[in-house]
Amino acid sequence: MKKKSCGRLICAAPEFCADLLYAGGFNAPDPIVWFQTSEFQAIVVSILEYERATVQAKKNVRVLPLEDFFTKEDKFKTDELLIQRISEKFGITEWTVPEEFPLAIADFLRKKGIAVASAGKFFPKREFKNAGEIRKIAKAMSVTQDAMQLAKEMLQQASIGKNMVLHYGKKVLTSELLRMEIEGFLKAHGFTASRTITAHGVQCSQPHNVGSGPILAGETVVVDIFPRDDESGYWGDMTRTFVKGEPLPVVKRAYDAVLAASQAAEQMIRAGVIAADVHNKAKEIMAKAGFETGKNKDGIPCGFIHGLGHGVGLEIHEAPRVSPANPGPLKKGQVISNEPGLYHPSWGGIRLEDVLVVTETGSTNFYTMSKEMIV
Amino acid sequence: MKKKSCGRLICAAPEFCADLLYAGGFNAPDPIVWFQTSEFQAIVVSILEYERATVQAKKNVRVLPLEDFFTKEDKFKTDELLIQRISEKFGITEWTVPEEFPLAIADFLRKKGIAVASAGKFFPKREFKNAGEIRKIAKAMSVTQDAMQLAKEMLQQASIGKNMVLHYGKKVLTSELLRMEIEGFLKAHGFTASRTITAHGVQCSQPHNVGSGPILAGETVVVDIFPRDDESGYWGDMTRTFVKGEPLPVVKRAYDAVLAASQAAEQMIRAGVIAADVHNKAKEIMAKAGFETGKNKDGIPCGFIHGLGHGVGLEIHEAPRVSPANPGPLKKGQVISNEPGLYHPSWGGIRLEDVLVVTETGSTNFYTMSKEMIV
Repeated sequence: MKKKSCGRLICAAPEFCADLLYAGGFNAPDPIVWFQTSEFQAIVVSILEYERATVQAKKNVRVLPLEDFFTKEDKFKTDELLIQRISEKFGITEWTVPEEFPLAIADFLRKKGIAVASAGKFFPKREFKNAGEIRKIAKAMSVTQDAMQLAKEMLQQASIGKNMVLHYGKKVLTSELLRMEIEGFLKAHGFTASRTITAHGVQCSQPHNVGSGPILAGETVVVDIFPRDDESGYWGDMTRTFVKGEPLPVVKRAYDAVLAASQAAEQMIRAGVIAADVHNKAKEIMAKAGFETGKNKDGIPCGFIHGLGHGVGLEIHEAPRVSPANPGPLKKGQVISNEPGLYHPSWGGIRLEDVLVVTETGSTNFYTMSKEMIV
Repeated sequence: MKKKSCGRLICAAPEFCADLLYAGGFNAPDPIVWFQTSEFQAIVVSILEYERATVQAKKNVRVLPLEDFFTKEDKFKTDELLIQRISEKFGITEWTVPEEFPLAIADFLRKKGIAVASAGKFFPKREFKNAGEIRKIAKAMSVTQDAMQLAKEMLQQASIGKNMVLHYGKKVLTSELLRMEIEGFLKAHGFTASRTITAHGVQCSQPHNVGSGPILAGETVVVDIFPRDDESGYWGDMTRTFVKGEPLPVVKRAYDAVLAASQAAEQMIRAGVIAADVHNKAKEIMAKAGFETGKNKDGIPCGFIHGLGHGVGLEIHEAPRVSPANPGPLKKGQVISNEPGLYHPSWGGIRLEDVLVVTETGSTNFYTMSKEMIV
């Protein structure tokens, strides 16, 4: 009888798999294999990546050349075959893999008599950021805030032209121009951002609408910036809502409600508090201010139509959720967003988003930028 | 007995799943579900994405709100449960899924008695680009070429300072500066690029080394630009190798060999020719010029150490491969790169990359930029 021997395994592109980037420390856009036996951890990379991998990989992770697992007779050097060879070489009979592990590889291994089972949280520790990670996240948040400052200054410097259209220098100030300037600034600082939200007016009633066209005075402009550090792989995430000129009275009231919800949530956040309670507190404050959550007569969702927050790290959305779906307590070292918002098809939307580290006694906000709506 | 009824299914984030973007036409960074029954195709999206999805989705794809599949009693609105509900509602007992389909969801469905099997090429048609796709790819290649022109001009305009270090304006011309300018230019045109290769000197001997530090006169600079169109999701891909000043004689000879290989491959490419033969032809030309492929005395691979080309589309690397691993013929409508290269730890590396559409009688090159090494 074969002796049972367990291992852990990931097969993915580190750039698109936070668990793998976390485990190996090596970033690449093409798939690699990471595995862990009872004795050691290793990544298996092509000879093209070998030198770079030995420099970047975490100290406790061996780097093995892919080519060592194949022979001249192997016509197709597939990931399936590679993992079969790894299993044979190191005597692994059972692999634990992440939930997103590719089905085809799992089915191939199972046919060869190698067990494969997925585990929900592959690295539960990823939720709790150590000092080194906090430094990398703080850098990401700092560059994100600088980009937000740029957006704010563009709106401040804009002039109001015919039909209330904003102008920036000689150009019409559009969502596209604002987004381009923000993303160009980020790129110049080694960060990549796409789909930066620079929505205006009623576009803001859809939280994921990136925005298009000329921005008018008196309209809300929701700016949601979420770039990734090309070097570290950590994300920033920040939202502010601005108005150049005079907003509608309902917008002013909604803004005040969102700001109050943001402040109350931040005061409440600390290790031990129930995540869902923080969400519900924010929702309640906005409801009391006259902004109930529900559907309007056309069946369109209005009010606070998303969760209050989410973890931020090597993924832009990761554990923990701060929403009714999370009845568990917040814990020390979690990095979470606090982003109440209000949305309505008739007047648009407002969102304010900070990111905080949860501590024993409260939280530390990465952002220092103030929250005035009118620029 | 339950009647057998088959469907096709994808569950992924369209931004990171070319098959899904291809099927639904709707781009989003968060996971959605696409499925096809014998009667219709649909994507299932959150109410937050619903309006945007109805505008963007392909005409033959229905957009269904996620919320319709859940009830108030559902505590956890997981993808697993959603797909179970879809299976029940539309009577699907067997799903065909892509090879990368998440294992955890497949295992969940199988436990519920719903069969799941992966298929190798989920959309074989993706390999063959129609006129609409060619237009989008041509746009991506055109912007990519403009970025390459910018890089070339920066090198042309550079001055040679102390110790042969290049200067651009008042700054030292580093790999980082070159990359930043290229990626900023692309961002300003609605394209996202990361890890743009701007390697110099012996760094170029590693095909994936992105490059760092001051660039010297006389050194090769390998510039490999591969941005993605934020709007269409199609990629560009282009490589040139430049030298400011006078290169080493071995570099000149290697460059001429790579150029000859590029030209011979391009002349050979047409529908019907065997992909591996094109690769081997390029390899042979470079070997005859004195650049054999193999390992040097330290075991480091030298020469033509990668495949000649790959398909380009909604993925930067997709079918078909143009390498010894592909014994099949090229076919009309395939879009492939042609990128011979030579690498050696002692003198660095050279690569020239074009992208072409395969036609009945030959090919059409997307790029018009000439290929002089010395700028």
